[in-house]
Amino acid sequence: MNYRMIAYTMGRILIAVAATMLIPMGLSVYYGEGIIMAYTIPIIVSIAIGAVVSIKPPEDKSLFVREGMVIVALIWIVISIVGALPFYISREIPNFIDCFFETVSGFTTTGSTILANVEGMSKSLLFWRSFTHWLGGMGVLVFAMAIFSSKDTRATYMMRAEMPGPVVGKLASKWQFSARILYMIYIALTILEIILLRLGKMPLFDSIVHTFGSAGTGGFGIKNNSIAYYNSAYIDYVIGIFMMLFGLNFNVYYIMLIRKFTHLKNNDEVKWYIGFMLGAAVLIAVNIMPIYHTFANAFRYSFFQVSSVMTTTGYATADFAVWPMFSQIILVMLMLIGACAGSTGGGIKVIRVVILMKIAVNAVKKAVSPRSVFSVKADGKRIEKGIVYGVLVYFVVYMIFTGLSILIVSLDNKDFATTVTSVLATVNNIGPGLGSVGPTGNFAEFSILSKIVLSIGMLVGRLEFYPILILFSPYMWKKS
Amino acid sequence: MNYRMIAYTMGRILIAVAATMLIPMGLSVYYGEGIIMAYTIPIIVSIAIGAVVSIKPPEDKSLFVREGMVIVALIWIVISIVGALPFYISREIPNFIDCFFETVSGFTTTGSTILANVEGMSKSLLFWRSFTHWLGGMGVLVFAMAIFSSKDTRATYMMRAEMPGPVVGKLASKWQFSARILYMIYIALTILEIILLRLGKMPLFDSIVHTFGSAGTGGFGIKNNSIAYYNSAYIDYVIGIFMMLFGLNFNVYYIMLIRKFTHLKNNDEVKWYIGFMLGAAVLIAVNIMPIYHTFANAFRYSFFQVSSVMTTTGYATADFAVWPMFSQIILVMLMLIGACAGSTGGGIKVIRVVILMKIAVNAVKKAVSPRSVFSVKADGKRIEKGIVYGVLVYFVVYMIFTGLSILIVSLDNKDFATTVTSVLATVNNIGPGLGSVGPTGNFAEFSILSKIVLSIGMLVGRLEFYPILILFSPYMWKKS
Repeated sequence: MNYRMIAYTMGRILIAVAATMLIPMGLSVYYGEGIIMAYTIPIIVSIAIGAVVSIKPPEDKSLFVREGMVIVALIWIVISIVGALPFYISREIPNFIDCFFETVSGFTTTGSTILANVEGMSKSLLFWRSFTHWLGGMGVLVFAMAIFSSKDTRATYMMRAEMPGPVVGKLASKWQFSARILYMIYIALTILEIILLRLGKMPLFDSIVHTFGSAGTGGFGIKNNSIAYYNSAYIDYVIGIFMMLFGLNFNVYYIMLIRKFTHLKNNDEVKWYIGFMLGAAVLIAVNIMPIYHTFANAFRYSFFQVSSVMTTTGYATADFAVWPMFSQIILVMLMLIGACAGSTGGGIKVIRVVILMKIAVNAVKKAVSPRSVFSVKADGKRIEKGIVYGVLVYFVVYMIFTGLSILIVSLDNKDFATTVTSVLATVNNIGPGLGSVGPTGNFAEFSILSKIVLSIGMLVGRLEFYPILILFSPYMWKKS
Repeated sequence: MNYRMIAYTMGRILIAVAATMLIPMGLSVYYGEGIIMAYTIPIIVSIAIGAVVSIKPPEDKSLFVREGMVIVALIWIVISIVGALPFYISREIPNFIDCFFETVSGFTTTGSTILANVEGMSKSLLFWRSFTHWLGGMGVLVFAMAIFSSKDTRATYMMRAEMPGPVVGKLASKWQFSARILYMIYIALTILEIILLRLGKMPLFDSIVHTFGSAGTGGFGIKNNSIAYYNSAYIDYVIGIFMMLFGLNFNVYYIMLIRKFTHLKNNDEVKWYIGFMLGAAVLIAVNIMPIYHTFANAFRYSFFQVSSVMTTTGYATADFAVWPMFSQIILVMLMLIGACAGSTGGGIKVIRVVILMKIAVNAVKKAVSPRSVFSVKADGKRIEKGIVYGVLVYFVVYMIFTGLSILIVSLDNKDFATTVTSVLATVNNIGPGLGSVGPTGNFAEFSILSKIVLSIGMLVGRLEFYPILILFSPYMWKKS
């Protein structure tokens, strides 16, 4: 392990992230909130530590997969601690574990909150809280690379570790565009959403923070009843559609930029993503029509909730915990499926689910003709066996981790729905679950142990398991 | 497809199963219940149909994997319909779909019931209901083969399709002993349990039906509050330990018969099975001590429930739906894990879970050193890649089927725990779940659609998916 290079890289990322805190600091001065120290202290400490460890580049600059994973895992933990300090120093969230939970939830774009009354927070802190979504969505490492150097080939190991989803097929293997182009697309979509929300008469501050929340598919709001506060079909549809857009594989935008539209037509993940989403929205709309009277009205609420849950954002315009069980089960399934690989969303990812479904269909065919060979195809081409095996194994690791987390959280003795969905909602980076962690509830009541387990779950889910899990692996430390 | 041979084989099995109905018929005469026609009609009809289709053996006796699966799938459906007739004709269960559900639940050794008041049934029907557990436990096909001919090599295709679990390692590959030896071990253990229950002063009739229920790991009782009725620690421990014994891989008994004890020492599945069970029993005992005051008392109830749930029997001496959530989650996990391969129990099977855990551990190691090769070992030997892949695929098929079933059952709009665990309890052949299908509840309230889906789930779970799923596969019918 090249420890010097790990420290050097982490130091530079820490400085970049700390520098972004200057924005909420400025806002806090502008609004005269009197909590400037809450930002000054973490900024100075982070920049000092970051500068010391990265003062001169090490001679041996080699970085391999393992180092890449360790950097990603550690830096996410470090920035979650640093990012929690403003909440703690300002005393607006008195308990440090709650501050940490809230910040992990922010960076991992989960959106689970321990705040019962979000409207009581300072505006600059609300801005910072939502800004962590925006930073975490594309990845803090990608962010740092976009600033410092975008052509470093060693960096691909780290981008791989931070970018969600398996590398499958033509599209994703063309992942050669730099962190800068990625960020330009991201910023362009962000600005577009802010403008459209302003046109819907949402105040500027609200437009910005809600755009951060949807761009990162995070879901932190600034009103106690989330987007329902604005009570506008226009705003519901703008945010609903933008959540859907941010849940798309970003390769799609790149391909649209380089105008290779034929590549899009064969993209299985995009087809299934939109198919699942619209199919679920229609089914739920029919199911909840008795509550909302007209199909149009039911569809408005159904589509928003579906888009929010499937992209793992977590905004709400309705309390789906009181919807019929059929709708709730569909939403829980969408939680598990999640968004596209290479997007800002969480979950197992659509492409993995599509591959798993195809494996299952092949297994039944194989039972019919045991001597035939069936291969798994995506985007019209056969997928390598190694990748198929990787997807299967990922699913198993996912289920085992989820199961063990549920077991630990069950020690808090909440009801079945709360226990199970609090874990699903965090590991899949969604935010709200069912029961007392439903859209109108929060995570404040959990024990410290559960909050730590759920925080680890959010990190594990965002970084797709291996980077965080290898930190806990005895084998890792034996090897080093 | 050799349709003539399929019909011939099915005819002979049908006759064998119908003949067993002579026992409850005799009992019904003995008790003077006046429902003799409830048995006479199905017996005559089955034997007539069976005789016609199997009157002379076809010239082409070839049977391959596909035919084996079709026979197993169809015969299980046929005997469930025939076995349901006594309940229907006697009018003791007025609705045919309920009769079918109850009989499928019997043969698949699930033990889920639609009866709210089991004590109101005729004794001969209670006997038949429990006897289906005993028959289904070892498999009706194995039963027929034990009667007709036990040396037919073609029969192995069918035994494979009916026998639970993947063929892994030394032990299971020695699966060369015949259906007859298998049944002798089964009968010996059955008689032993009946004797021990009689020594505990349980009435003879009760001893026999409860032994059938534990031997088949089924769980149908004859008292509204199951085994709790007898309120005897001795009886609790006898049944608890026998459920555990019937959940063991039957290879173990064979190996003990031929005295190759060294083979037992390395048996991973047995070690993990006992480890999981005792570990869970102790954890739950500590968790429920506040309710039961002493550890000994808590352990009595904990061990019984753990053994009942893990072997997928479903007897109860306590209503675990009111235990702390930690205990409930452990029990739900044991439901999923299930018993050993090659036993009468259901679930995913211990050996599969052990292989899945080892795959997950290897995946984390592989993330640490991507170029190393890690193989999965069981019983001290490497497992073939094909088997490992098969276990992974099985798990995926299992999860997808379970998910779709939950979706359909959710249309009934029950609460979350009931919706999810009703499917888990049937697909894993357990019996009771949580919520309103908990140990004190029943399945009567579900819609006809849900009852059909849950019945298919029981069959799918008992026959380990492929035989039933290929019946629904368009590919199968295209191929034929």
